[in-house]
Amino acid sequence: MTSTPMKSRDWDALTAALKGIEIITDATQVAKLSQDYHTFSPILQAQLAGKTGDLVIRPANEAEVLRVAAACVEFKVPLTVRGAGTGNYGQCVPLSGGVILDMTRMQNICWVKPGIARVEAGVKLAQLDKKAREIGWEMRMSPSTYRTATIGGFIAGGSGGIGSINYGLLGDRGNLFALRVVTLEDTPRAIELRGDHVQKVNHAWGINGIITELEIPLGPAYPWAEAIVTFESFMAAARFGQALADSDGMIKKLICITAWPIPSYLTPLRQYIPDGSHAALLMVAETSLEPLADLVREYGGSIAYQKLAQDVGKGFQLAEYTWNHTTLHARNVDASITYLQSIFPADKSLKVVEHMYDRFGDEVMMHLEFFRVGGTAIPGALQLVRYTTEERLNEIIRYHEEQGVFIANPHVYILELGGRKKVDVEQLEFKQMVDPYGLFNPGKMRVRLEHDL
Amino acid sequence: MTSTPMKSRDWDALTAALKGIEIITDATQVAKLSQDYHTFSPILQAQLAGKTGDLVIRPANEAEVLRVAAACVEFKVPLTVRGAGTGNYGQCVPLSGGVILDMTRMQNICWVKPGIARVEAGVKLAQLDKKAREIGWEMRMSPSTYRTATIGGFIAGGSGGIGSINYGLLGDRGNLFALRVVTLEDTPRAIELRGDHVQKVNHAWGINGIITELEIPLGPAYPWAEAIVTFESFMAAARFGQALADSDGMIKKLICITAWPIPSYLTPLRQYIPDGSHAALLMVAETSLEPLADLVREYGGSIAYQKLAQDVGKGFQLAEYTWNHTTLHARNVDASITYLQSIFPADKSLKVVEHMYDRFGDEVMMHLEFFRVGGTAIPGALQLVRYTTEERLNEIIRYHEEQGVFIANPHVYILELGGRKKVDVEQLEFKQMVDPYGLFNPGKMRVRLEHDL
Repeated sequence: MTSTPMKSRDWDALTAALKGIEIITDATQVAKLSQDYHTFSPILQAQLAGKTGDLVIRPANEAEVLRVAAACVEFKVPLTVRGAGTGNYGQCVPLSGGVILDMTRMQNICWVKPGIARVEAGVKLAQLDKKAREIGWEMRMSPSTYRTATIGGFIAGGSGGIGSINYGLLGDRGNLFALRVVTLEDTPRAIELRGDHVQKVNHAWGINGIITELEIPLGPAYPWAEAIVTFESFMAAARFGQALADSDGMIKKLICITAWPIPSYLTPLRQYIPDGSHAALLMVAETSLEPLADLVREYGGSIAYQKLAQDVGKGFQLAEYTWNHTTLHARNVDASITYLQSIFPADKSLKVVEHMYDRFGDEVMMHLEFFRVGGTAIPGALQLVRYTTEERLNEIIRYHEEQGVFIANPHVYILELGGRKKVDVEQLEFKQMVDPYGLFNPGKMRVRLEHDL
Repeated sequence: MTSTPMKSRDWDALTAALKGIEIITDATQVAKLSQDYHTFSPILQAQLAGKTGDLVIRPANEAEVLRVAAACVEFKVPLTVRGAGTGNYGQCVPLSGGVILDMTRMQNICWVKPGIARVEAGVKLAQLDKKAREIGWEMRMSPSTYRTATIGGFIAGGSGGIGSINYGLLGDRGNLFALRVVTLEDTPRAIELRGDHVQKVNHAWGINGIITELEIPLGPAYPWAEAIVTFESFMAAARFGQALADSDGMIKKLICITAWPIPSYLTPLRQYIPDGSHAALLMVAETSLEPLADLVREYGGSIAYQKLAQDVGKGFQLAEYTWNHTTLHARNVDASITYLQSIFPADKSLKVVEHMYDRFGDEVMMHLEFFRVGGTAIPGALQLVRYTTEERLNEIIRYHEEQGVFIANPHVYILELGGRKKVDVEQLEFKQMVDPYGLFNPGKMRVRLEHDL
């Protein structure tokens, strides 16, 4: 039931069927819009090199999406959905050509109410934030790419980020209220999924539906201050991070802990961070700056930099040096650097963090991001790895896994092999219904339902 | 250095020195204002029976407090501070007579800003909430007595409550920004304590300073919905409570789990709770009602009652059937009932909760209140105990302690023997400075500094 390459003449028929909808056929443009940030991984870079769609379609609304869906079904053309292409797993790189469905024109904010908003999939996170802040709210969590990333892309390809220290991950119940998805059935339709049913499509890389609209909860918009705190000892920095994460009386949004030499890659921040120092990059509510000073004192750190919410537009945005932007900046200095994505065990003593820090030294530079999992703040990590060979990278991954570290391997392009590790039967069943011809982002899943093979 | 009874003629001199300040001398009134809710404990009831102050002084502002302090020092009169008298440990029952300092006239809300407020000590919690909600904020946590309790009394004699599932306890760093306290030195003065220094006076029962003003953080005011969820199995209700507490994507303020027959004591709630059912009494953000329904389904419960924020003024306030109001309502039906205050171990399997529920059955009726301790949501409990003898009560307490349950014994009137268990040297040192004559609420501490004995 997989798709077969379309004869060249069929493209004309498909294009004709989509009259009035924006279509990009320029090869350079199409190649560009077939990319994402999988290039952070030398392995994916090699595996996905040259993979490109045949054309890009940019629908302006759901009606156009339905027309595109109908055409793809009619001509049996693979369809790969993309937002802004800020993912790192090759989520929106098409393996079998076909149509790239670029959702970035669908930027309608349907409504924003206290605590909740409904938007089209192509709305940028920063754009919703701006609108929501007018009434005192903001996105609960955002990736470090919030300026460019779309909400639909974040839901389909992301998992959490800045704010996850409060609200956990996107997949946690209550962090996504509704999804509206267009199918690739014989007669495509839009289906509204609410409550637990959103999990059928959440973080599924567009393999089982085109997300057109989303209803998402918002969090109260505190005036967020930014701060850099430096430490002479990495473990003091890490323990400070855990303590801040566990301080229920202090309001925070971001706890990023970087071991030296990572700060040396963060150029505009360098002036604040002494050579050899380890740095905590933080966002806390302005009202929590006073208790923060006490906590910093307790852990022997120094507040090296501070910016109040009113100055948010001035200078750099600290958040854009955290999460996977840390990797981006490091790679700008040294392109041989790659990264891991890890979840350390819930253990306040940070024993395993310390062990890995000691064991791998400069080869695996420690970069912790604290976030909540099932009510407990734990250190996630996006360690920077000095890449040598695939064998060595896998050896490092294996060693981490043996010590109880969960690795959401960012060097694979198969959905189940990354953060998932297991097959989501509910998602597969939904896929079977909405994608009878296997046209959605083909090749990104290793497993299909048994009766489907 | 303890105080000695004042000769009767000295009262006239003291009263004369306080001309213009409201003084109550009527014996009935004084006796009434020497009481709190220690009567929930048959043991404290007996121990504190007949303890009363000599007169009550009701200062209108800090200047008057300073005059009262000076007079008490001059005449070496014990001084016991009280707010609304809603405590349960006899915190504001004077053991050696003297002056009762009733702070309830000091109701000035100095200012309210986003996320923070400064108030005089006698402001009622509900009063600040009302003011703060005008700009979208509210108290982070409140006892179930929020309608009558004062903020000063809550800080001095309370520890947490409704909202502690988000922000932990009052003693956690960041939950109290500043305290202004008047001393009983030879020349009394007002001292401002900020940051970690507030811990010198926080929850010290007024043994080392008269709190006149406080600066406290606020939390964002969600539209809170109330809900009652019923369960056929108590452990299903308890596990549901833990799961809701750990659901980072769901916004909640109150998770109270009551085992049958406790619901039978909560008269206005009875119509919603079938006989023999166990009930969760909840406050969640309105936007979390939809995911709540999914969570309830997962744990096999039934939503029996729901009230939206707009109807907050109608019918009963669910919060007033939780925390120690549960005990109040039960005692209104059966005055032989008393209670415990417990913190169960952080263990998501709730093994010890289950063990105690099975072991004590109807004698110790399980009443859980979930709150955060150091970043982890755990079940606290205010179990209702069918009181027989002091020996049996102590046996029950001892058994709990042996199984790893922390008991903040509400049957003692000594500061260190209740929730504290240990001596706070910082508070003792501060006491030594501000109370050289040992006039503050004498007899409520067992330990003094060594060089002080």
